[in-house]
Amino acid sequence: MDSRAASPSDPSAVFPAARSTDPAPVSAADVKNAAERIAGLVRPVTVAPGGDGVWFALEFLQHTGSFKARGAANFVTAQRDAGAVPETGVVIASGGNAGLACAWAARERGVPAHVFLPRTAPAVKAERLRGYGADVRLEGTTYQEALDASRTYALATGALQSHAYDHPLVSAGAGTLLTEIALAVPVDTVVVSVGGGGLFAGVAAAAAGLGVRVVAVEPENCRALNAAHAAGRIVDVPVNSVAADSLGATRVSADALHWIGRPENVSVLVPDEAIVSVRRQLWDGHRLAVEHAAATALAALETGAYRPERGERVAVVLCGANTDPSDLV
Amino acid sequence: MDSRAASPSDPSAVFPAARSTDPAPVSAADVKNAAERIAGLVRPVTVAPGGDGVWFALEFLQHTGSFKARGAANFVTAQRDAGAVPETGVVIASGGNAGLACAWAARERGVPAHVFLPRTAPAVKAERLRGYGADVRLEGTTYQEALDASRTYALATGALQSHAYDHPLVSAGAGTLLTEIALAVPVDTVVVSVGGGGLFAGVAAAAAGLGVRVVAVEPENCRALNAAHAAGRIVDVPVNSVAADSLGATRVSADALHWIGRPENVSVLVPDEAIVSVRRQLWDGHRLAVEHAAATALAALETGAYRPERGERVAVVLCGANTDPSDLV
Repeated sequence: MDSRAASPSDPSAVFPAARSTDPAPVSAADVKNAAERIAGLVRPVTVAPGGDGVWFALEFLQHTGSFKARGAANFVTAQRDAGAVPETGVVIASGGNAGLACAWAARERGVPAHVFLPRTAPAVKAERLRGYGADVRLEGTTYQEALDASRTYALATGALQSHAYDHPLVSAGAGTLLTEIALAVPVDTVVVSVGGGGLFAGVAAAAAGLGVRVVAVEPENCRALNAAHAAGRIVDVPVNSVAADSLGATRVSADALHWIGRPENVSVLVPDEAIVSVRRQLWDGHRLAVEHAAATALAALETGAYRPERGERVAVVLCGANTDPSDLV
Repeated sequence: MDSRAASPSDPSAVFPAARSTDPAPVSAADVKNAAERIAGLVRPVTVAPGGDGVWFALEFLQHTGSFKARGAANFVTAQRDAGAVPETGVVIASGGNAGLACAWAARERGVPAHVFLPRTAPAVKAERLRGYGADVRLEGTTYQEALDASRTYALATGALQSHAYDHPLVSAGAGTLLTEIALAVPVDTVVVSVGGGGLFAGVAAAAAGLGVRVVAVEPENCRALNAAHAAGRIVDVPVNSVAADSLGATRVSADALHWIGRPENVSVLVPDEAIVSVRRQLWDGHRLAVEHAAATALAALETGAYRPERGERVAVVLCGANTDPSDLV
C-alpha cells in the first residue's frame, strides 16, 4: 500500500500509513494534550494584520522555518515520555521540512536522530540537518531508496520511525497552531495549504471545538485531499506543482479525509501561477519571503477560490519559509 | 550649514535643518497627536517573540517596507490638514526608504509627490517609486545634484519640501511605533538603530512618558549620534558602513541629541561584521530577511554592546527590509 515519492526533498507520501490499527481521527483532546506537551519548546505563533480584514499567522518564524516543528516536538516528546524511544533514537527519510523538524525536536529532547537522504541530495540540506545535530546518512540515489534504507536501519537497530504527517501525534502537534491563532485574534475561518494533510487534520480537529471553519487549499495539480474528498476514499494522485517540494504528497491521511468531511470545512484548488504571484506579492507588499506552500494558502483568497462573507474574520497560515529568496528581487 | 550626502540612496544628511526656528524637541504629546492622525493609515506593528526574553518589533511589515511610512504619513497628513500643501504637492530627493514613504503617504492622502533621483540611480528604484504613484524626476549624476534640483523645483513651484528625519512631524510619526510596542508587550527597554535620529528621537519622546529606556545603536563607522553625544553638540562624521544605505546620515538631528542626553537612554556602537552576521542569523534562525539597519539594532545585544539586566524586558525594532535577500542563501 505504499504510495510513490512525490518530491525531491520530502518523501512524505511514501511513509506507510501509521493509522491502520487506530481508526479514531485526531481530536481536539489530542491537540490539547499536545499543547501541554510542547509548551515552552515551540515558539508561540505570531499573528500580523494582512490587510482587508485578513490576518497572517507567521508560522514560518517557527523553529526550523516551518510548522513541522510542532508535530515533531509532540511526536518525539510523547514517544519519549511513553518509553517508546530506544537508545538508538528516531529515524526519518527527509531532506525537507519534516526532516529538519525531526532533527530539531530530537536534539531538544536529547534523542538521537538519524536522517536518511539520497546521495544526490544537495549538500546544503545535509549541512542544515547536521546543524540540528542529526546523524545524516546518504543512501541510494532517490528518496525512495533513502526511505528503504531508513526502514532497513529501523528494523536492524530498533530506531523509532518518525512520520511526516500521517500520525496522530504529528497532526495533534500541528493543530496547536489553530489554538494559538484563536487565542490571539478572533477568527471565523482559518486557511491552510495541504500536502499530506497533517496540518489540516490537526487544525480542523482543534477548530471544530471552537466553531472555526478550515479552508484546505491545494495546487490544482497536487490535490491529494481534494481528490480523496471527491472520491470518498483515499486515492493516489499525480503531483506536479511549484509547491510540490512541501505539498507533494500523492495521498492524504485518513484523518485529513475525515475532517474535510465536516460540512463547515472546504477544499479548494489554486493554479500554480497564482501561487507564484502571491509569493511575490508577500515580498513586495509585506517583505515576507515565504515558501510556495505558504503562498498557496493565501492564493485561495487572491483568486477567489474561497470568498469570505462580508465581516468574516479570516486567518491565513503562512506555514513555512524554507525557500530560496533570491528570485524575489 | 548643509552637511554632505552620505549614502548612495538617501541624501538624508543633506537636508537643511528644519528645526532652526523651533528649538522645542519632539515630545510625547507630539507622538500622541501623530498616532491619532495616522491611525488606520499605517499598519499596526506586529511583535514576535525573539527568544531569550527578547521581542522583535516587525516594523519591516509596514507599508513601503520600513518605519519611514509612519513619519511620512504624519508629515503629509498634518501639513495637508494645516493647508500647507500646495496643489503642486510635496517634493523630496531620495531613492531610499524616505522617498518610498513620502510617495506612498502622498498617494494615500491624495497629494502629488515629486521624487528627485540622479540619472545614475538604479532603474528599479525609480520603478518602485512610480509604483507608489510618484512623479519621478532624474536630475544630475549625484544625490547632491538631485537634491539641488529638488530645491530649485520647490522654489520654482512652491512644492512643500519633505524631510527624511529632521522634522518634528516625521519624528513624532516614527515615535508611534514605541507606543504600539508598549501596548503590545511589557517592555523596559527598546533598541533601535540610528541614522539621522528621526526614529530615535520620536521613540525616545514616547518612551520617556512610559519609563522605557531607549538604546540607540549605530555602526562603528557611522556614528552621527554617538559622536554628537560625546561632543555635546552636532558634529559631522565620516560614514563607512554596510548599513550606510539606510543609516548613513553624516549629522544627527537636534532632537536626537536632546533625547540621548536623558540619563536612561544609551548610545552604543557595533562593528559591521556583527551587523552582517546578525542579518544572516535572522534569516537562518527566524526566516526574516531584513536590511542591515534592522540587523544593526539586534547586533547590540548579540555583541554585548548593550547587556540587559536579568529579567529586563527588551524589544528590538526590526525597522526595515528593503534589501536584496539573494545573499542570504
